[in-house]
Amino acid sequence: MKKYFAEMVGTMVLVLMGCGSAVIAGGAAGAVGTGVGTLGVALAFGLSVIVMVYTIGSISGCHINPAITLGIYLTGRMNGKDAAMYMIFQVIGALLGSTVLYFIATGMGIPGNIAGANSYAESTSEVSAFLAEAFFTFIFVLVVLGSTSSKAPSGFAGLAIGLALVLIHIVCIPITGTSVNPARSIAPALFSQGAALSQLWLFIVAPFVGAACSALVWKYFEDEESVN
Amino acid sequence: MKKYFAEMVGTMVLVLMGCGSAVIAGGAAGAVGTGVGTLGVALAFGLSVIVMVYTIGSISGCHINPAITLGIYLTGRMNGKDAAMYMIFQVIGALLGSTVLYFIATGMGIPGNIAGANSYAESTSEVSAFLAEAFFTFIFVLVVLGSTSSKAPSGFAGLAIGLALVLIHIVCIPITGTSVNPARSIAPALFSQGAALSQLWLFIVAPFVGAACSALVWKYFEDEESVN
Amino acid sequence: MKKYFAEMVGTMVLVLMGCGSAVIAGGAAGAVGTGVGTLGVALAFGLSVIVMVYTIGSISGCHINPAITLGIYLTGRMNGKDAAMYMIFQVIGALLGSTVLYFIATGMGIPGNIAGANSYAESTSEVSAFLAEAFFTFIFVLVVLGSTSSKAPSGFAGLAIGLALVLIHIVCIPITGTSVNPARSIAPALFSQGAALSQLWLFIVAPFVGAACSALVWKYFEDEESVN
Amino acid sequence: MKKYFAEMVGTMVLVLMGCGSAVIAGGAAGAVGTGVGTLGVALAFGLSVIVMVYTIGSISGCHINPAITLGIYLTGRMNGKDAAMYMIFQVIGALLGSTVLYFIATGMGIPGNIAGANSYAESTSEVSAFLAEAFFTFIFVLVVLGSTSSKAPSGFAGLAIGLALVLIHIVCIPITGTSVNPARSIAPALFSQGAALSQLWLFIVAPFVGAACSALVWKYFEDEESVN
Repeated sequence: MKKYFAEMVGTMVLVLMGCGSAVIAGGAAGAVGTGVGTLGVALAFGLSVIVMVYTIGSISGCHINPAITLGIYLTGRMNGKDAAMYMIFQVIGALLGSTVLYFIATGMGIPGNIAGANSYAESTSEVSAFLAEAFFTFIFVLVVLGSTSSKAPSGFAGLAIGLALVLIHIVCIPITGTSVNPARSIAPALFSQGAALSQLWLFIVAPFVGAACSALVWKYFEDEESVN
Repeated sequence: MKKYFAEMVGTMVLVLMGCGSAVIAGGAAGAVGTGVGTLGVALAFGLSVIVMVYTIGSISGCHINPAITLGIYLTGRMNGKDAAMYMIFQVIGALLGSTVLYFIATGMGIPGNIAGANSYAESTSEVSAFLAEAFFTFIFVLVVLGSTSSKAPSGFAGLAIGLALVLIHIVCIPITGTSVNPARSIAPALFSQGAALSQLWLFIVAPFVGAACSALVWKYFEDEESVN
Repeated sequence: MKKYFAEMVGTMVLVLMGCGSAVIAGGAAGAVGTGVGTLGVALAFGLSVIVMVYTIGSISGCHINPAITLGIYLTGRMNGKDAAMYMIFQVIGALLGSTVLYFIATGMGIPGNIAGANSYAESTSEVSAFLAEAFFTFIFVLVVLGSTSSKAPSGFAGLAIGLALVLIHIVCIPITGTSVNPARSIAPALFSQGAALSQLWLFIVAPFVGAACSALVWKYFEDEESVN
Repeated sequence: MKKYFAEMVGTMVLVLMGCGSAVIAGGAAGAVGTGVGTLGVALAFGLSVIVMVYTIGSISGCHINPAITLGIYLTGRMNGKDAAMYMIFQVIGALLGSTVLYFIATGMGIPGNIAGANSYAESTSEVSAFLAEAFFTFIFVLVVLGSTSSKAPSGFAGLAIGLALVLIHIVCIPITGTSVNPARSIAPALFSQGAALSQLWLFIVAPFVGAACSALVWKYFEDEESVN
């Protein structure tokens, strides 16, 4: 159970701090007390991953993302029961994070879409949004699989994975707000309803498609018997 | 005595540089010579912790925060006398940092709340401020306990802890200015008086509550005998 | 073949994310959903390198830049056939990255120079642009050669090299948009045509000149027999 | 000689990139091609140090700052002849960096104070400027001495020292532009003349005073025989 609870706590932190930065501090970068802008929100998501990897990495591996869990499962590093339990506890953690954020933001009088849900504008085609979420998740999970392999320098995986999430948010926030993580999309969508809920399928399917591709590519890279 | 002086110097640097960034460079992000904005202040607090961990970590462990000292004490990693002395020297260091900042800022003609005290606006409910400070300190001290455990990758704790403080400031500056550290709140409040002083109890009690929760959760995670 | 494919994937990520940040999120730093500004684009290029080094470094060394490959070749760390193949697959990867970016950006309705090509304004002299690209590539490849030498601390090279690229972009974006990487310039120029294509020679020749100088300087530093 | 040349190259990079970011990209943070703001300039100085430590650290220790060399000398880690030669080659390197910057900026048509010299406004008292430069150099050199001690985690010193320089610039750019490094002030002052030259004494004396204090404090911390 301990590792499942660790996934729950880690995903709670990711959603509370990542979505929290967008909800509470997402205004234009300005003087102290005002917002941190797009770059600040990108940092908040990535730093959440970095700090949680070094905190709970030794307990659960710190996936805190069903797409990562799928990639790890498909490369044969974990069994199916654990993978399913990880995903369930990640979604529970995301719901807890959204709930804490709801109470803090309400107490500050912040109205509207207070949970930081993902969605794409009408001007962006569905194909473009799907391509972005799938391709960026492919990159993200490839970084996870590569930086945690036995040949990569020990200890640096947390930095590499978290900085990859910063990078992806820098490019992808203007497209979809950036999911690459079904748990991070499911919880806020339940609070926001509307477009976030009707588009939710894309933020579940596209990341899983991307993660499956990462597993395929990484297995090729790692295969000792293929011609070098 | 050496480790107590190290805590004093470290907390002095944290308060001088963290609060100093808000007081001196806290204007809207702009051209060189103007401000660094909310993100710059968040970085100043977090970088202060990173650089001090690698400087005095081998001497005192670099808590430089009474809430961290409480968390370390409650998990049984230090005795009560040392914990009390650490807290006293942390507050002395914070007072020294505020004093140096007072002299530099006065010489620049900066008026008003020159010490960077914590407070929350009237529009924010007391419950929301308390919840934020307690919850974010819980996350912060959990990162400290996890990243310094014997199973975490060696050497990376300083980065993880400092980046956690950057993360927390990104989200929490618009709420309370961000304390999660009673010493960092006490010293500036003595210089600022007013709301900073009347609200000071919250910035002492809430971080201690959060730190106690971290100790409980971490002891569960670390307990070898509990069911996996 | 595996290492050539790794170079292709790595360069694809660099061009997609680096140029993608400029094309999609390059507007003025603002509220969430708007741009990340010059600093955000500088981070995107550098973080791409950091995350790819920790992902594919153990497979190909992660050059993802023909100028780096030239520097490594000239210091005798790889043979000529591999160097040529690396460069070819880097250009193929850059073309793939530009193509994916083209499709995503088109679906968002982004017009004009959508591939993030390099060029310099009429107000900047050709000598100044050449000097900047050559000198900054010299610094970049020197960091590569030094941080990957056997005497440098193990594991930190990825951070040092990626942060060097952030640094170079901070200074050089206002000059040429920053290439220091012929593959990164060739692919977008084919999409953009115009000035990007007529000035393309400079973004191939200047980085190669800079890289050759790095190899010379580093061989002097590394030469055990020269007088200390 | 090799280590002296390494100091020359490292200081050249620091001055070219640090001052270069202020001269070329120092405008308000904006869309791609415009400026990076105060935070970008702070990052440029700090990242220059990080990347140079991992590049030439194994050759010369990468001081690239006469105040650091003084601190290392006073703690008995180097002899007087080397200390003097280091300082001379650091100043030569700074002059080379300013010269390259002069040519690049001139070719871009950038007028005025193109070398990024240090100075303080009339509204800032001389005492305040001196206090800031001395105190911040004290912090900077203390980080150098602590993070490079044998008890600190191996390999992280470059990150700690460079991030300390980012931190100091965040707070100190609005005060003096930030020196904490006599070589970094001497070269640009020769290009700028005027106030930069008449105030130059302060940017030499104050950093040396601060560095001497660091050596004293660190020797106390390191002294094995003092009561713990």
